[in-house]
Amino acid sequence: MHTFKELVTDFGERFGVRHFPQSPASLYEPGEYFLSWGGKRIRPVMCLMGNEMFDSIHPDSYHVATAIELFHNFTLIHDDIMDEAPLRRGMETVHMKYGSNTALLTGDVMMIRAYEYLNKINGQYLHRIIALFNQTAKEVCEGQQLDIDFEKMPDVSLDAYIEMISLKTSVLLAASLEMGAILGGASEGNCRHIYEFGKNLGIAFQVQDDYLDAFGDPEKFGKETGGDIRQNKKTFLLLHALEVTDAEQKKTLKRVMNENPADKVQKVLSIFKACNVDEWAMQLKEKYLATALKHLDDIAVMSVRKKPLEELALFLIQRDY
Amino acid sequence: MHTFKELVTDFGERFGVRHFPQSPASLYEPGEYFLSWGGKRIRPVMCLMGNEMFDSIHPDSYHVATAIELFHNFTLIHDDIMDEAPLRRGMETVHMKYGSNTALLTGDVMMIRAYEYLNKINGQYLHRIIALFNQTAKEVCEGQQLDIDFEKMPDVSLDAYIEMISLKTSVLLAASLEMGAILGGASEGNCRHIYEFGKNLGIAFQVQDDYLDAFGDPEKFGKETGGDIRQNKKTFLLLHALEVTDAEQKKTLKRVMNENPADKVQKVLSIFKACNVDEWAMQLKEKYLATALKHLDDIAVMSVRKKPLEELALFLIQRDY
Repeated sequence: MHTFKELVTDFGERFGVRHFPQSPASLYEPGEYFLSWGGKRIRPVMCLMGNEMFDSIHPDSYHVATAIELFHNFTLIHDDIMDEAPLRRGMETVHMKYGSNTALLTGDVMMIRAYEYLNKINGQYLHRIIALFNQTAKEVCEGQQLDIDFEKMPDVSLDAYIEMISLKTSVLLAASLEMGAILGGASEGNCRHIYEFGKNLGIAFQVQDDYLDAFGDPEKFGKETGGDIRQNKKTFLLLHALEVTDAEQKKTLKRVMNENPADKVQKVLSIFKACNVDEWAMQLKEKYLATALKHLDDIAVMSVRKKPLEELALFLIQRDY
Repeated sequence: MHTFKELVTDFGERFGVRHFPQSPASLYEPGEYFLSWGGKRIRPVMCLMGNEMFDSIHPDSYHVATAIELFHNFTLIHDDIMDEAPLRRGMETVHMKYGSNTALLTGDVMMIRAYEYLNKINGQYLHRIIALFNQTAKEVCEGQQLDIDFEKMPDVSLDAYIEMISLKTSVLLAASLEMGAILGGASEGNCRHIYEFGKNLGIAFQVQDDYLDAFGDPEKFGKETGGDIRQNKKTFLLLHALEVTDAEQKKTLKRVMNENPADKVQKVLSIFKACNVDEWAMQLKEKYLATALKHLDDIAVMSVRKKPLEELALFLIQRDY
């Protein structure tokens, strides 16, 4: 058994190679540029962890993990085009550096490359892995489209938002774990539980992310807070506030969002606090985390094999900032 | 054995179903919209023909053919975004009708759908088919990127242009045939010959396309000629003319291309004719067609099994307009 951190190092070293041919450089250098930034590689490591819960790590898991990470990076490159984002993690995005058309093709070819790694799988699980990969990939596209749709809608229900966030971010975490589990020979019941663990953990993480952007300590959070509020971004906090505030507060909230006063963040935060959005969000996060851990508990393997995923959950969620 | 036309009807009926779920409609309606336009479905039919040359049509061939057609449509949707094309075949393009972001996602999800059909293949050929599909998909992206690169370059050699055109359009025709042949149990030698037949036929077709845009009879060609010349599009004709004209003609040609006079098409055509570009193009087309037919001839099956592909070649190439 390996810890999360050991697997991050192990996978990071294996993934840190060239993934594309040299030529044509105009197509493949942008892809190498984007992949060279590194990162925690959480999704592929979750695939390895899902595998190791049931067996020693199978060589095919590295192929699947690589496919997952390439797919994730493909979505980031295309998302950045759609969001017209100039920077990601402080670096110039692919479309800013190389143009939108090349970024579009760089994403396309990165997705194809992901399927090349999937095609390296030998044996009985190939069809099942590709089916889950495809289903998840479609759901991620659905989530991104719903995100685009929601931006234009004046009112979005919290339930609809949770569905969108789940498709856009959680299902890939869930499927990463399950693909590893499949390769480890896990039963269907165990596969379902590990998937639900990942899905609920992902939603808990997103609730926390929204919370920290509003209420986090900027020094510990590592970036300025209030960004979502300034952009009127639909978050767990805003959607809940709009659902629970009284008519008067709701009017004030909408006015502040429209008028963008200098003290917008302060004003929105005080409305959030007045209707206890902060406490609600912490409870919501705990609810999803508890559901995740219940599914982890229900997986029929010895509890010592669950330790690494428990640690991962606490690493992702119980951050004190 | 079926004729090309019979297979066009057969595949058209099978393909003319819904390929995406109902929801979210904002993502999947654009895909259905684009696919509903119909078309000759040449690539998937070539897959069926490649299969039938060696055996009766295997059910898996329909899955692969569907994947090929979805992949082809994915490339068209993304190409239209890159080219900022308002119309395709007289219809509003996906990005014009639904916005670029949705068009981007519609393409992405159509490619994923293609892999869902590939994953329906049973049996021994799955790995080989997916490998050829992936390799071809990457090459199509490479061709599109080279096309973007060449547009910005003042000088492109004819050889580089042929390589680009081959990647962008011919390899998918070639691979469609070969995937069918693989499913029919064809030997490696026969697979190579049918691939080269398709690749050379594709180049011959492109030479003809460039020729007709300049020298075709508008009534028979079905659209106005001279479009490529008006847009200074790099074509077989222009690149050859730039390679063979004398210094004086070349200067005139470049001036006309820059200044866009009212009689630009006439002037460029007269330079083309002065350096025999029209005859050269006809000979080049015949050269590639002859190479294609030589490879068809070299396939080790009874000649009666080659008839449909021979007819297809003549249908695509020996058009009298």
